[in-house]
Amino acid sequence: MTQNPISPTIPLDGPGKTHGFLRLPYSRNDSAWGSVMIPMTVIANGQGPTALLTGGNHGDEYEGPIALQHLAYEIDPAEISGRIIILPYMNYPAVRAGTRVSPIDQVNMNRAFPGKPDGTVSQKIANYINDVLVPLADVVLDYHSGGKTLDFLPYAAAHYLDDADQQAACVAAVRAFGAPYSMMMREIDAVGMFDTAVESQGKVFVTTELGGGGTATARSAEIAIRGAQNVLRHVGILPGGIELEGGSRMLDMPDDVCFHFATRDGLLHPLADLGDQVRKDQAIAKIWPLDRTGAAPVEVTAHRDGILAARHFPGLVQAGDCLAVIATI
Amino acid sequence: MTQNPISPTIPLDGPGKTHGFLRLPYSRNDSAWGSVMIPMTVIANGQGPTALLTGGNHGDEYEGPIALQHLAYEIDPAEISGRIIILPYMNYPAVRAGTRVSPIDQVNMNRAFPGKPDGTVSQKIANYINDVLVPLADVVLDYHSGGKTLDFLPYAAAHYLDDADQQAACVAAVRAFGAPYSMMMREIDAVGMFDTAVESQGKVFVTTELGGGGTATARSAEIAIRGAQNVLRHVGILPGGIELEGGSRMLDMPDDVCFHFATRDGLLHPLADLGDQVRKDQAIAKIWPLDRTGAAPVEVTAHRDGILAARHFPGLVQAGDCLAVIATI
Amino acid sequence: MTQNPISPTIPLDGPGKTHGFLRLPYSRNDSAWGSVMIPMTVIANGQGPTALLTGGNHGDEYEGPIALQHLAYEIDPAEISGRIIILPYMNYPAVRAGTRVSPIDQVNMNRAFPGKPDGTVSQKIANYINDVLVPLADVVLDYHSGGKTLDFLPYAAAHYLDDADQQAACVAAVRAFGAPYSMMMREIDAVGMFDTAVESQGKVFVTTELGGGGTATARSAEIAIRGAQNVLRHVGILPGGIELEGGSRMLDMPDDVCFHFATRDGLLHPLADLGDQVRKDQAIAKIWPLDRTGAAPVEVTAHRDGILAARHFPGLVQAGDCLAVIATI
Amino acid sequence: MTQNPISPTIPLDGPGKTHGFLRLPYSRNDSAWGSVMIPMTVIANGQGPTALLTGGNHGDEYEGPIALQHLAYEIDPAEISGRIIILPYMNYPAVRAGTRVSPIDQVNMNRAFPGKPDGTVSQKIANYINDVLVPLADVVLDYHSGGKTLDFLPYAAAHYLDDADQQAACVAAVRAFGAPYSMMMREIDAVGMFDTAVESQGKVFVTTELGGGGTATARSAEIAIRGAQNVLRHVGILPGGIELEGGSRMLDMPDDVCFHFATRDGLLHPLADLGDQVRKDQAIAKIWPLDRTGAAPVEVTAHRDGILAARHFPGLVQAGDCLAVIATI
Amino acid sequence: MTQNPISPTIPLDGPGKTHGFLRLPYSRNDSAWGSVMIPMTVIANGQGPTALLTGGNHGDEYEGPIALQHLAYEIDPAEISGRIIILPYMNYPAVRAGTRVSPIDQVNMNRAFPGKPDGTVSQKIANYINDVLVPLADVVLDYHSGGKTLDFLPYAAAHYLDDADQQAACVAAVRAFGAPYSMMMREIDAVGMFDTAVESQGKVFVTTELGGGGTATARSAEIAIRGAQNVLRHVGILPGGIELEGGSRMLDMPDDVCFHFATRDGLLHPLADLGDQVRKDQAIAKIWPLDRTGAAPVEVTAHRDGILAARHFPGLVQAGDCLAVIATI
Amino acid sequence: MTQNPISPTIPLDGPGKTHGFLRLPYSRNDSAWGSVMIPMTVIANGQGPTALLTGGNHGDEYEGPIALQHLAYEIDPAEISGRIIILPYMNYPAVRAGTRVSPIDQVNMNRAFPGKPDGTVSQKIANYINDVLVPLADVVLDYHSGGKTLDFLPYAAAHYLDDADQQAACVAAVRAFGAPYSMMMREIDAVGMFDTAVESQGKVFVTTELGGGGTATARSAEIAIRGAQNVLRHVGILPGGIELEGGSRMLDMPDDVCFHFATRDGLLHPLADLGDQVRKDQAIAKIWPLDRTGAAPVEVTAHRDGILAARHFPGLVQAGDCLAVIATI
Repeated sequence: MTQNPISPTIPLDGPGKTHGFLRLPYSRNDSAWGSVMIPMTVIANGQGPTALLTGGNHGDEYEGPIALQHLAYEIDPAEISGRIIILPYMNYPAVRAGTRVSPIDQVNMNRAFPGKPDGTVSQKIANYINDVLVPLADVVLDYHSGGKTLDFLPYAAAHYLDDADQQAACVAAVRAFGAPYSMMMREIDAVGMFDTAVESQGKVFVTTELGGGGTATARSAEIAIRGAQNVLRHVGILPGGIELEGGSRMLDMPDDVCFHFATRDGLLHPLADLGDQVRKDQAIAKIWPLDRTGAAPVEVTAHRDGILAARHFPGLVQAGDCLAVIATI
Repeated sequence: MTQNPISPTIPLDGPGKTHGFLRLPYSRNDSAWGSVMIPMTVIANGQGPTALLTGGNHGDEYEGPIALQHLAYEIDPAEISGRIIILPYMNYPAVRAGTRVSPIDQVNMNRAFPGKPDGTVSQKIANYINDVLVPLADVVLDYHSGGKTLDFLPYAAAHYLDDADQQAACVAAVRAFGAPYSMMMREIDAVGMFDTAVESQGKVFVTTELGGGGTATARSAEIAIRGAQNVLRHVGILPGGIELEGGSRMLDMPDDVCFHFATRDGLLHPLADLGDQVRKDQAIAKIWPLDRTGAAPVEVTAHRDGILAARHFPGLVQAGDCLAVIATI
Repeated sequence: MTQNPISPTIPLDGPGKTHGFLRLPYSRNDSAWGSVMIPMTVIANGQGPTALLTGGNHGDEYEGPIALQHLAYEIDPAEISGRIIILPYMNYPAVRAGTRVSPIDQVNMNRAFPGKPDGTVSQKIANYINDVLVPLADVVLDYHSGGKTLDFLPYAAAHYLDDADQQAACVAAVRAFGAPYSMMMREIDAVGMFDTAVESQGKVFVTTELGGGGTATARSAEIAIRGAQNVLRHVGILPGGIELEGGSRMLDMPDDVCFHFATRDGLLHPLADLGDQVRKDQAIAKIWPLDRTGAAPVEVTAHRDGILAARHFPGLVQAGDCLAVIATI
Repeated sequence: MTQNPISPTIPLDGPGKTHGFLRLPYSRNDSAWGSVMIPMTVIANGQGPTALLTGGNHGDEYEGPIALQHLAYEIDPAEISGRIIILPYMNYPAVRAGTRVSPIDQVNMNRAFPGKPDGTVSQKIANYINDVLVPLADVVLDYHSGGKTLDFLPYAAAHYLDDADQQAACVAAVRAFGAPYSMMMREIDAVGMFDTAVESQGKVFVTTELGGGGTATARSAEIAIRGAQNVLRHVGILPGGIELEGGSRMLDMPDDVCFHFATRDGLLHPLADLGDQVRKDQAIAKIWPLDRTGAAPVEVTAHRDGILAARHFPGLVQAGDCLAVIATI
Repeated sequence: MTQNPISPTIPLDGPGKTHGFLRLPYSRNDSAWGSVMIPMTVIANGQGPTALLTGGNHGDEYEGPIALQHLAYEIDPAEISGRIIILPYMNYPAVRAGTRVSPIDQVNMNRAFPGKPDGTVSQKIANYINDVLVPLADVVLDYHSGGKTLDFLPYAAAHYLDDADQQAACVAAVRAFGAPYSMMMREIDAVGMFDTAVESQGKVFVTTELGGGGTATARSAEIAIRGAQNVLRHVGILPGGIELEGGSRMLDMPDDVCFHFATRDGLLHPLADLGDQVRKDQAIAKIWPLDRTGAAPVEVTAHRDGILAARHFPGLVQAGDCLAVIATI
Repeated sequence: MTQNPISPTIPLDGPGKTHGFLRLPYSRNDSAWGSVMIPMTVIANGQGPTALLTGGNHGDEYEGPIALQHLAYEIDPAEISGRIIILPYMNYPAVRAGTRVSPIDQVNMNRAFPGKPDGTVSQKIANYINDVLVPLADVVLDYHSGGKTLDFLPYAAAHYLDDADQQAACVAAVRAFGAPYSMMMREIDAVGMFDTAVESQGKVFVTTELGGGGTATARSAEIAIRGAQNVLRHVGILPGGIELEGGSRMLDMPDDVCFHFATRDGLLHPLADLGDQVRKDQAIAKIWPLDRTGAAPVEVTAHRDGILAARHFPGLVQAGDCLAVIATI
């Protein structure tokens, strides 16, 4: 059995607050003895549970990295009970490139778990997180947003799980997060997801979608920061009660009928925006051709009643792209 | 004097509605006798002025192309008096690539006017528009948005001009457009702009910024469509009165103090959103480092009181990027 | 066992003629929830066998795609007995790029069978065809040509098989195809080929080489169309007798001596053309250097008597390229 | 006035046969003090005219380079009277890359004349040829073929010129070349062509189109070699009479009606081949879509009666590509 | 079990001196029936051991290729007893590209052993060498240098091995090589190395580091040539005694403390050179920022006393790069 | 006349030490309102001359940037009399890319002077330096080294100038610099050089070549730092006398015979090193082929007696590369 070549440059068990790296040796044309240096912060104090907070699973999603840089810098170790391990940039090469998948191996980290100790760069990172960091944690919060090509209503989410107690604990943590929307998800294709890897180790797991388009706003960054603080309060690592900014609306994506795909390449003309209520058969978008004027657009209509919860972000669309997700309420 | 090699595949003077192309021969590795085919629609009927409607001056700005595809398809020639020339994709190679500048020659078309008949592809297109299409027009509406790297409050705009009558006519057309915001602009660096080229020919000119991020929304597309219809009604090409959806708030960018630049590369943490009122010295953004945790962020503070009218869009920022524009009211 | 994520957007069993796609979810930087949409037509009517007709196994070979677009459009379901499944663009990403192998994973689809349900894009496509479509078929016709770097005399071909009955059925189908040349082939390195995958399922299989250079001609397109019609008539899916345009000359490539390789990079100066009779030791090509004049060329001579059946197409040649194949008659 | 930095490594005036280079200093990232070394042969003996023979004006056209490597190697200086200057690879960087235009500056050398001594690499080469080599010549033969994206019937050609005597001399040289077809051409857009640059210096000029597709055949190479020998015999540099292989058929491209352009991207389905007689309104090609099956193809019909003299070569076509040229006879 | 598709174009057992290739069929976009042609020389005469001499394991290390081209050309088969198999360019595609890893599959050949017969190009080459060539050898000499990103003091090296006799034989060969420095190495991460593959077959193995920076000097080339001659004399293939140019200084890298890594990107300011004696805590380098002036540099200090034996070569450094190796004496 | 859009973010006239940027607005796909931020330090105190110190004219030459970062950080404004303007990274985009020429416009900045205010990025930078900074200076020191593809003996240099007084002043400054070697140069092709631009403004100018290969050593960095300090002492900006580390040997490159070019691509086998004395006709390098073994190398011999002063650095060489410069003493 090959050993994972990643080593941390700081101790994983504190005490106090230390900032360092996961160092992964990576030999390549521009550095024969180079490394990938994945920033990490460990904050530890007294007795209490361990939270693993991760961002940058996809490299073009920014609410997580912002919130985690903020928390790594601002949290005073004296105020916590337990341990917080912070990885704002999980797929570090992708974060530096501003891309969903790693520019080194083209791997989507969220389909690479449990990883391989002798695999590609992304697979090694996934494997180290899976085998070393997740086992240390009681609760894992992994931030996602839509990235450069999708946009979402802001929500935290839990999965339907076989273990009712574990599911209940996850749902409670999602509620504590306190995003404007909350979602229960049934993953059809859960193979390789970080979510699945964490849940299969019996941990409390919270994931999010907090916006998208490859940007963050003051508001979405605030939701992300307060959400993590709330989860940390919920599990007793931070003191005090959770702080909610109004209620969290429940959403549901019960089946594949929610998803609307493009059948043509073209220029996307949206007819409904995120959060809009739509009715079955209502036109929600047109696709205009890119090579001529005067041709009829393709019209995309809603498969069901509901609320527009996610949408294709770029102005151009390719056949096969998911254009819209209509959630039920 | 070299002749511009571009030729239209349809007559420029109607009558009725015809859809065709500006054909520009372009010899290259993958097509020795290829062409750039720039879609164009001409709608002509009866007596009346000529409007030139253009989008895709930058290839990653979508409200204009959407509105112009919609109008080219929907306008009934029988209902107009005069002529409408529609070019939804001015910098066609950039539009197909989804990029600000042309992938062929890296030219920013809005700094390429009046163009060159024997220049690069972008310069030839600019030259044909400048020398052939603009002279035919009485009014020119050129759509812009923020593109993939900027985001704007939605506004139409006119320039301060030496000719008071021309300026008044432009302002009247901007008001007719009816965007949520309106802007008077004093261009410092007007060399090469389409705006300048049109205004120097004595035409009525309206430009816009209608959003950004490389996407369009149902709402921004609607503003774009209604704005063009209003301008066409204003000049008498379309019948009926202009339709406004509430008032248009006036903005001003009086000087360079409005612009806020990044001095470091990093992760952009916005502290104010578009439309927010900000006070001088208020922190409007932080920049976190991309290579470590635990380091203090750079804080960017407002140079003046005002409203956040434009912002850097991507989650990552490079030193020298304009982070924010604070307009006065 | 992972399930193949590909799903058809149309039923595979008709009735009538339907056009749709094999949809393969493909998450990537430019579309987080994107898909590869592989066009497919199913024509079904009454009782009869099933034919699977495939093109675009290599993305730069055009006779197959042309013939299959033509047949998908022209065949009247009322006239057939049985079912025709048409995939003109098997390696769809390669077809769109005009390249032999897929631009996504650099995989040569004809060495990727039986594929993997959890592999790369090409491996998933191969696996779906192998596991779902081939089992439905009685006869499979897979079109090849030389692509951008080889040129062939036009032929249909069958392999020497262990099962004499299966081989006889294949040969009969090749004869029915009616190309100007016919070929019996003994594959040395059959691992991963679609041919092998189909034959190992006991199906009747016809493959072709119908020209090359990354182009098609009116004549080669006609051979391809008529060949498929003849095979469909031969198996009783289309009515009527097979139509031949003159005889089909038998070719043989008995061993490796047929293949002639370049030992230098350079400029290829052919001394014999496709279809020419050559004699052992006759010079069939020279290679001139690319970096100087006045140097002696390398001369390539025929290893045996025969007919020039295939040749390197591009004007430049690299050491190791197959320059010529001399078939025996 | 800047001086052209190119210098020959061999004398331009012989005597005898010498092989060398035009050396152009070219500082770049991978060689700060590098050069472009353009191979050249000079053969000089006794009294007589000077012929300049050039190939590789476009880097993906191979009959010229083959013929000129052959002649540079085979011609015995003792047998000639006068001088032959041979440049098989004019746009040397393009020839090495196998591309039409230079990979260094993206310049089409045949639109770069008379060049610039302080321009880009291609412009410097064009300028040296224009200012130094052409003035030495009495007759210039410049080889072209269709390159990777066009295919032509094999012809030599002369232009209609203002100077009747010069035109007659050119036509006589074209006839001497003895290609299967001969063409009189009226260049509309002659700006920047090598042809124009040579003719404006009062020289006898022959150009050719001898095939295409980015390949050469034994037959097209033979036409190219014999053609140059014939021209050299015609002007008295080589002894003996010209050798014709059957007559040369005259073609004419009287106007723009000869050219047929694609209006859609797609898969090209040719319905007529080079040399075929076609009638006005006859379908000569279909274009099938690349993104679906079952859609009607676009049909391209002949604008006039005539013979198919040139065609688009690649199997895929882009809107704006010239699909076919129908010559009159 | 798949068979390795590589075949030699010359016999591996002589007699005399023959030059040829290992031919690896490699189908790709620019040559459907192309090959990788790896140059090889076999020299055989009389009775005696077999030496396998390899260079180009990494494609940007030049002392080995130079020495092996020299020896392949200069050695007279009559003077040897036994056999010499010479592969100057093991990772041939990387050598042609001047890169550490293969441009085809991005594989570091020295982590690809024992290879795979059905793997990527590099894996197939590694497998052929492992399965066919190494078993033929008694002694293997594999040349390394620092490549484009590292620079080394010139040394030959042996590994600590479990088999004391084998280790002694290796050490004797290293001493015979006679480089200015000699090194005993304990590989921590030996998985996939050619070294390990050879040693595990019980062979005598010598490796080297002879300089770096992606260049060779007259002096380093001389060391490389004389070293191989000495090893061949040592095992009796070449006659005569070994020739030393002064003593060889022993170096040791006992543990990970020798390695010094950068923690910031920036401009590398070295404060000690190769061969310099340094003391623990002495500053050996500074890293200046690339985006500003006036900021304090990061200072790198020595972890131990010793001699600077290896260093990062390029002027720019990335976080995680190995900056320096301090060996003990 | 267009105005140069570059503006400094700090005053150019002090007093004290300030660190800032030259800001050049640069609109591009990844930042519509982006800038190039060129780091600059101004140190001013009391009365005295102005020195302009520049590095990074070529982006892969490191002694200048190191010395200038060091001086910008270390110099105490209180100790100087006059002003020092420091630009360590003139061609900033090239420095960030580690390339000789700018990745933005492929411009060699040292052939771009006097620049263009409306040109490309490099031309704008050159123009600002030429029109704004050079006029402020009395003495200009511009650092060069060999970059990634050349290696030099370390020298400072002056040009032969028409103005004898100016030349004498330059020579005196070169001597003050105190590099191990000093050089008088006669530029043949001085068009566009920074050197020429500075000298034509009547300034004292010192240039250097201080090593190469795209690296710096402790020793070369020390020469660079001490050289600038010496020049500043020489002109009275820094107090104290110049410090020499041994004598400076005079070199001369009297004519083009000094330069030795490669006529083949291949593997460079050096037979002499920098600083070696060589004799006319002595072999100084061999070039081995990259595509085979067993072929005779091309041998390069010295054109004259002298000392090897510069050499091609990379292990691979292309035809036309300068392999070696032999200086006379």
